Amino acid sequence: MFYTRKCGEIEESDFGSEQTLCGWLQDIRNLGGIAFIQLRDITGIIQLTLLKKKLGDEKFKDWTSINRESIILVRGIVKENKEAPGGVEMLPDNIEILNEAETPLPLGVIDKIDSEIETRLNARYLDLRKSEIAANFQIRAAVSGAVHKHLRREKFLEVQTPKIIASATEGGTSLFEMKYFDKTAYLAQSPQLYKQILMSGGLERVYEVGPAFRAEEHNTPRHLNEFITIDIEMSFADDDVVMGVMERLVDCAARVVAKETEALETLGIEPIELELPLPRITYD
Amino acid sequence: MFYTRKCGEIEESDFGSEQTLCGWLQDIRNLGGIAFIQLRDITGIIQLTLLKKKLGDEKFKDWTSINRESIILVRGIVKENKEAPGGVEMLPDNIEILNEAETPLPLGVIDKIDSEIETRLNARYLDLRKSEIAANFQIRAAVSGAVHKHLRREKFLEVQTPKIIASATEGGTSLFEMKYFDKTAYLAQSPQLYKQILMSGGLERVYEVGPAFRAEEHNTPRHLNEFITIDIEMSFADDDVVMGVMERLVDCAARVVAKETEALETLGIEPIELELPLPRITYD
Repeated sequence: MFYTRKCGEIEESDFGSEQTLCGWLQDIRNLGGIAFIQLRDITGIIQLTLLKKKLGDEKFKDWTSINRESIILVRGIVKENKEAPGGVEMLPDNIEILNEAETPLPLGVIDKIDSEIETRLNARYLDLRKSEIAANFQIRAAVSGAVHKHLRREKFLEVQTPKIIASATEGGTSLFEMKYFDKTAYLAQSPQLYKQILMSGGLERVYEVGPAFRAEEHNTPRHLNEFITIDIEMSFADDDVVMGVMERLVDCAARVVAKETEALETLGIEPIELELPLPRITYD
Repeated sequence: MFYTRKCGEIEESDFGSEQTLCGWLQDIRNLGGIAFIQLRDITGIIQLTLLKKKLGDEKFKDWTSINRESIILVRGIVKENKEAPGGVEMLPDNIEILNEAETPLPLGVIDKIDSEIETRLNARYLDLRKSEIAANFQIRAAVSGAVHKHLRREKFLEVQTPKIIASATEGGTSLFEMKYFDKTAYLAQSPQLYKQILMSGGLERVYEVGPAFRAEEHNTPRHLNEFITIDIEMSFADDDVVMGVMERLVDCAARVVAKETEALETLGIEPIELELPLPRITYD
């Protein structure tokens, strides 16, 4: 590994020791005789403190003129500093640029100014560096992890069904057509038929987390033509049992997401607390 | 739930109590005054013991003439019987046919005779009922579960990348072409470009378990045009670190699969035991 510690994982027992860190140079504040660099990795931000007197004019000038969002590798002593974010700082003896960012950036990472969606998608590699964008990935992964864990605990067997299919599985949904060598095939809009075969085959409880495709033209940004479906099928169950599976699954996901405190805080979202069983409303 | 117990999960504390079971009628052995039915569900097989004297001629005749592989619901007292498979039997008071199988079956489930692959695929709903076929699904799910669990433990973030893409991600691989409304698109042959964007975006460690598609005509049954890929990407790592991730992942999967004793036994496969670190061979 290129690094010995992650930026957000330096502990008291590390104070006074030499460590190597890797990350993205988020910001520099140069006060003349002293400069502070914010170094960011996936675990957090650490302050690098540069002293001109200690480093000499040349090094100080070189290191304080590295472009923002460059990827750097730093080595130095880590120590406590109650005034630094996270209470830790590093005094680097060496900074190596692994990859220098071009300037100007097409998009700011910590700037308060919003960018157009077009700009953001064209520079998605930068857009992802924003904590509020990365937080979505964190929460999405938490939900997916909760689904896998919970359904396995309820004895559902994970399956993966074909996505290239010979015929439609549901009426009313448009299919993407494709060429499968000399045949015409379609992209699956649901694992439905396969799940039903698995039920006939006696597997009793199966689930799949995977892509589904629907060739419907929408005029809203709330619909997707390709999406990840959490699909469940079970035998010998009535509607009440199925609703029980669903509510426990949602509850489990909500509880796992609630643990993602940092991501939720970044997004300004309060965790949801459910009380089971959820009220069930009849048609009557 | 239609049942109160699963066939393979009746415990000593259940002996003497009335239970309801659901499953597939695997086989009947009729000895005249007594008959034994093998009832199968996903957890195992239980013996149903029918006594002509107790049930009367009509019920005995009706219940012993249910077609094999029909789905039935049975209610009765469960008790210990050391001679029965699993040491348990049920004396049913009632048998309800949920779904009667047609006869003859296109394919035997417990018969020793092998079927042609064409017959098996045409009656895949029956083929899946064979324990050696279901065992593959069990082991596959175990591997997938191990992958998710292990990579999350090593702080990899699960991601799901698009499968409909605008351009090729790797040279040398043929793509399936499709129509995306008025545009031409392709099916992803790898999450490569997306993983790399995620690395540039600072997520550092990501993985995906999902389908990939390769439009290559093969003359072997060992190649697939659609398959599930376990795809990993990480930043700040050298080849040695990557090999470490891989060997721990394989080791973890092997250990989880080793716990699937029943499935392995059904398939006649010995569990693999790895000794880490695996030997690493250089090019020289």
